[in-house]
Amino acid sequence: MGREFLDLVDTREAHSIIRSLFQEIYHPPKVEKINLKYAYGRVLAQDVKSPIDLPPFNRASRDGYALKAEDTFHASEDNPSILKCIEVIEAGAIPQKKVRRGYCSRISTGAPIPEGADAIVMIEYTEEEDDNILIYRSAYPGQHIAPRGSDMPKNEIIAKKNSILSPEKIGAISAAGISKVPVIAKPKIGILSTGNELIEPSNHWTPGKIFDSNSHSLAAAVKNCGCEPKILGIVKDDYTEVYKTIQESIQECDILITSGGTSAGAGDMLREVIEDIGEVIIHGISIKPGKPTIIGKIDDKLVFGLPGFPVSALIIFDVFLRPYLMELSGKPQMEHRTIELPLARRLHSSRGRIHYALVKIENNKVYPILKDSGAITSLADADGYIKVPKNVEILEEGSNVKVSPFSQ
Amino acid sequence: MGREFLDLVDTREAHSIIRSLFQEIYHPPKVEKINLKYAYGRVLAQDVKSPIDLPPFNRASRDGYALKAEDTFHASEDNPSILKCIEVIEAGAIPQKKVRRGYCSRISTGAPIPEGADAIVMIEYTEEEDDNILIYRSAYPGQHIAPRGSDMPKNEIIAKKNSILSPEKIGAISAAGISKVPVIAKPKIGILSTGNELIEPSNHWTPGKIFDSNSHSLAAAVKNCGCEPKILGIVKDDYTEVYKTIQESIQECDILITSGGTSAGAGDMLREVIEDIGEVIIHGISIKPGKPTIIGKIDDKLVFGLPGFPVSALIIFDVFLRPYLMELSGKPQMEHRTIELPLARRLHSSRGRIHYALVKIENNKVYPILKDSGAITSLADADGYIKVPKNVEILEEGSNVKVSPFSQ
Repeated sequence: MGREFLDLVDTREAHSIIRSLFQEIYHPPKVEKINLKYAYGRVLAQDVKSPIDLPPFNRASRDGYALKAEDTFHASEDNPSILKCIEVIEAGAIPQKKVRRGYCSRISTGAPIPEGADAIVMIEYTEEEDDNILIYRSAYPGQHIAPRGSDMPKNEIIAKKNSILSPEKIGAISAAGISKVPVIAKPKIGILSTGNELIEPSNHWTPGKIFDSNSHSLAAAVKNCGCEPKILGIVKDDYTEVYKTIQESIQECDILITSGGTSAGAGDMLREVIEDIGEVIIHGISIKPGKPTIIGKIDDKLVFGLPGFPVSALIIFDVFLRPYLMELSGKPQMEHRTIELPLARRLHSSRGRIHYALVKIENNKVYPILKDSGAITSLADADGYIKVPKNVEILEEGSNVKVSPFSQ
Repeated sequence: MGREFLDLVDTREAHSIIRSLFQEIYHPPKVEKINLKYAYGRVLAQDVKSPIDLPPFNRASRDGYALKAEDTFHASEDNPSILKCIEVIEAGAIPQKKVRRGYCSRISTGAPIPEGADAIVMIEYTEEEDDNILIYRSAYPGQHIAPRGSDMPKNEIIAKKNSILSPEKIGAISAAGISKVPVIAKPKIGILSTGNELIEPSNHWTPGKIFDSNSHSLAAAVKNCGCEPKILGIVKDDYTEVYKTIQESIQECDILITSGGTSAGAGDMLREVIEDIGEVIIHGISIKPGKPTIIGKIDDKLVFGLPGFPVSALIIFDVFLRPYLMELSGKPQMEHRTIELPLARRLHSSRGRIHYALVKIENNKVYPILKDSGAITSLADADGYIKVPKNVEILEEGSNVKVSPFSQ
């Protein structure tokens, strides 16, 4: 009659156990230093401070003439100040000459202000006449100059720990001359499918076989959580093979997710294997679909045994892994909002287990998808799922329900 | 006095020109076939149809006994039907024996239904006794069987053109035995920084120099649009060098973005180069910041010359490139919503040009960031920007403004 489940736990208890396990095992998160080129969207693991003043020198913010402001105080269209130009300073160059009263240096935007000068008059308000530079406007001291450190003084925090590296933050960090940043390492999630009937989608179909879809849908769901999936392939429902594969693959990843082989039926193997290598912590959660879910610990790493049916596997992932993986990778979970809309038709549920039902949203109404959890098309059609509480048997047409949208 | 701008165009005109250019040059979008492993988040370029029936055979959806339903019609707890088991069919196997009246085959979830059987009774409602299988419940024809093609018949559309490949869609596609999918190719965007003063953030700082930030912030912004950035590095403000680099790099990308060297000042070079290799279409847009923006065409590819100041470059990118790049890569633009909130303090603007002002949101109020567009920290601090219309000089404290959040 097959093996029995451990005591079923309810979803609240399951969440509380999973939360503590993540806290215990994966805290604090791993940190890695990566090139800024690959940093977009990653999460800073430490505050990043500027090692230099920005700008690193008094910088011209316009093209024009660097001069002493007092030389221009009475300048006007009718009565220009007349100065001698002693140098041309391009951006990137180092000024060689000191500007004294009666003199000026031609300067480009971005170039360092020469010693002695304290203002810039824009090129538009000047004229070159023989050896003289005519200045038609007066300037105040500091005009069109960005003083050293005015943008950001040395040691100031550019971007804070836990912030997501946006284009703007990456710009500011690179401006400080930083090319590598400490970010939260992407947790590596191994993904294994078990089942004698499974073959790779790249293979030719042969009778009796079914193409493995869980590896690929779970890998995408793992990416969506900011983690790095590692597809480990398909393994047969055979104790020795499952044992060997899990023992090896657990070394290469932080968390291992398997699908299939969890039910209490003939092909059950996974629970035995986890018990023999490590420890089974949960076997059986009182939800539908996904009751036979297994959670275990091997070598201080978590193993999640999801059911084999594609819909069940993805819903269990969404409910019991996604929130913790997102936290682990430092991603904000803002997207996981729910949408409240009326049910388009009556939905029957089963008492005693929380029921996650796939739904489609159309014309602002929620349509339950009634195919069974073996049906892969119900996934492709679904916009998300609703949670029917344990002791509710019927949700009436028109009653408001909260839809958890699937990750995009 | 430097070179003059072409006639300034206003933003509406600029958008209309850019839109037509994208239509003319980049339509229809390029398509590439990629492995499903890399397909998460990509955009389907064609409908994907199932080449097979799903499931590909009549499939058991429970562990139990495959039998003729009529053999169980009167079965009950007190009066079980008694059948002989002729075969054990594991998932992945091919049934060898036909089930006749009085017989049954043990079957696992996912296995093909043997010939002759038309129902499954779950293992829980059966018992093995010597050579006999006792069946305690009656079954209806079709019970716990997913008929061939019931999930998805051959040639049905699994996922539609232009849909984004979510975990669910990837699951459904792989279940159909498809391992490669046609997606919209990521547009390749070359990114070039010009300026004698620029050095790479990985270099040591030397006097007079400034670390290049635009390459890195723009590369991240390009990724955010679903495109592939190619950082081409820094080139000096020298006609020959700029000419050579642009001529070479335009071959390797679909669009080229440069920053710096666009103003009408001493270092201007870019306009001349684009004119000599191709055609300048826009030089100067009546906005602030970013007036000296250049848009040109070389070899039927677009070149965008953005201003050198980091804030200006990123705002121009956001306003004039981002919407078109997202459309080109097939990404939906839903994130680019605006948030309406009251202004925390009065903001002065300049008449005659649309003004994009950086802002920070705090306590549900909008604070203008008053640093100039050379200041890189204003970027790191900013949550987005507001658009002050051409003929508005003052926005009063408390007036509602629409914030365009920067890409995350």
